Amino acid sequence: MPTVTVVPLPPLPEIQPGDDLPALIAQAWWELAAAQPDLAPRRNDVLVVTQKAVSKAEGKLVDLTTITPRPEAVAFAKQWDRDARQVEVVLRESAEVLKFERGIVISRTHHGFVCANAGVDASNTGQKDIVTLLPDDPDRSAAQIRDRLPALLEISAEMAPAVVISDSFGRPWRFGIVDVALGVAGLAPLIDLRGTPDVDGRVMHSTIVALADEICSAAELAAGKTSRQPVVLVRGIDPAGFNATNPGSVTKDVVMPTEMDLFH
Amino acid sequence: MPTVTVVPLPPLPEIQPGDDLPALIAQAWWELAAAQPDLAPRRNDVLVVTQKAVSKAEGKLVDLTTITPRPEAVAFAKQWDRDARQVEVVLRESAEVLKFERGIVISRTHHGFVCANAGVDASNTGQKDIVTLLPDDPDRSAAQIRDRLPALLEISAEMAPAVVISDSFGRPWRFGIVDVALGVAGLAPLIDLRGTPDVDGRVMHSTIVALADEICSAAELAAGKTSRQPVVLVRGIDPAGFNATNPGSVTKDVVMPTEMDLFH
Repeated sequence: MPTVTVVPLPPLPEIQPGDDLPALIAQAWWELAAAQPDLAPRRNDVLVVTQKAVSKAEGKLVDLTTITPRPEAVAFAKQWDRDARQVEVVLRESAEVLKFERGIVISRTHHGFVCANAGVDASNTGQKDIVTLLPDDPDRSAAQIRDRLPALLEISAEMAPAVVISDSFGRPWRFGIVDVALGVAGLAPLIDLRGTPDVDGRVMHSTIVALADEICSAAELAAGKTSRQPVVLVRGIDPAGFNATNPGSVTKDVVMPTEMDLFH
Repeated sequence: MPTVTVVPLPPLPEIQPGDDLPALIAQAWWELAAAQPDLAPRRNDVLVVTQKAVSKAEGKLVDLTTITPRPEAVAFAKQWDRDARQVEVVLRESAEVLKFERGIVISRTHHGFVCANAGVDASNTGQKDIVTLLPDDPDRSAAQIRDRLPALLEISAEMAPAVVISDSFGRPWRFGIVDVALGVAGLAPLIDLRGTPDVDGRVMHSTIVALADEICSAAELAAGKTSRQPVVLVRGIDPAGFNATNPGSVTKDVVMPTEMDLFH
């Protein structure tokens, strides 16, 4: 039975800029495996790491006391009871602003992600007046974590878990946020089932599954929003999703060029 | 450790209109529990059932040989190599057509779901010229399944699993489909974490998690697209998500009125 198991790694210490995140992750996994030996690393494991943890470790922090907001940000903040300096940072992180109303900025980030507030986040930063930004290149962030893990976990490179960087995004037409992938390493973010005959022998169309996004959503179910458990182990994913040699890319493969977006 | 476990129930027979889907589901769960006693029903289990299985059992099928397409559907089908009769059914299932181009119809269904082809699907129907429609009221479909399960599973009503009806939807800005919830019973489709202090004691905003959607995405990871395993057991969901007395509603709680949709 293709059981999928989703287990948070034990809590990490509060992450600080410059912290060795791969080492902290490996340490947590050693702890978990000591308590539950069946959760020691296996081939085709996936680690989902929250953007917040990655951004903190990478020092993607902004001290709002250093920010001078533009007049537009000041007016918007005043009207909607927001922090003008934070609005300014959101605008700086935006390549294209899609909505700027009712206290929320919806924009396309420099990576191409469409989300609220350009991923700028003041929660769980550990300090007043500090906000986190998204990593510059979340695929690279994932690869940098993944590359270090075999040595730290004392496993072969072929056993390296896939790494997915997750964040919580709103979406059109439906209330509620879902966790999606910002970056991947060692995992195909999409699985293309087009051309696979269905049970009637009919060839299915348009069945490209957003594997990495679904993995992030599954991981969120096992992780607490307010906890210091930013890493979740997901085991039991279809082996077809793994590619040890092609690291995969969310920004190249998942982010949709505007001109191809029928929903938009 | 709040482990989430995702396990497909054993294969069901090919579903036919009028089949007793709750009985088939219960039978499959008995089989699973016989093989793996730890997977017998427990409090706060969730069963995710694909829309396709529900629609077939409910007889939500259309025989395309009975359909006369309107001229608009004929022209569109000719241009994009589609079946004009199926395009006609899609238009009939649509309350509002948002896009009608490049061979794809994006519309808002009568339920309020925005998706491709109004949920009309020709794959895995078991018969040529037969397409499935979405259930009329997926929340009610979920409740009807859930209500039958305690007796069939020989458990108390309080032990009844939550039931979620899932379907695969595309979304704007990102390639790939993800499974989302069309209907729920016994589960809050959204969990509102607004007002919960984060680790810094700061009150978090806008953290309404789309619990049912994430559960459907997790279920999809353990289910094969082409399999006859339309039911997946998800165990380990936050107990706060369960409400034995309030059945919950996707169409009332998750579907966003257009005027509130900042992303749109």
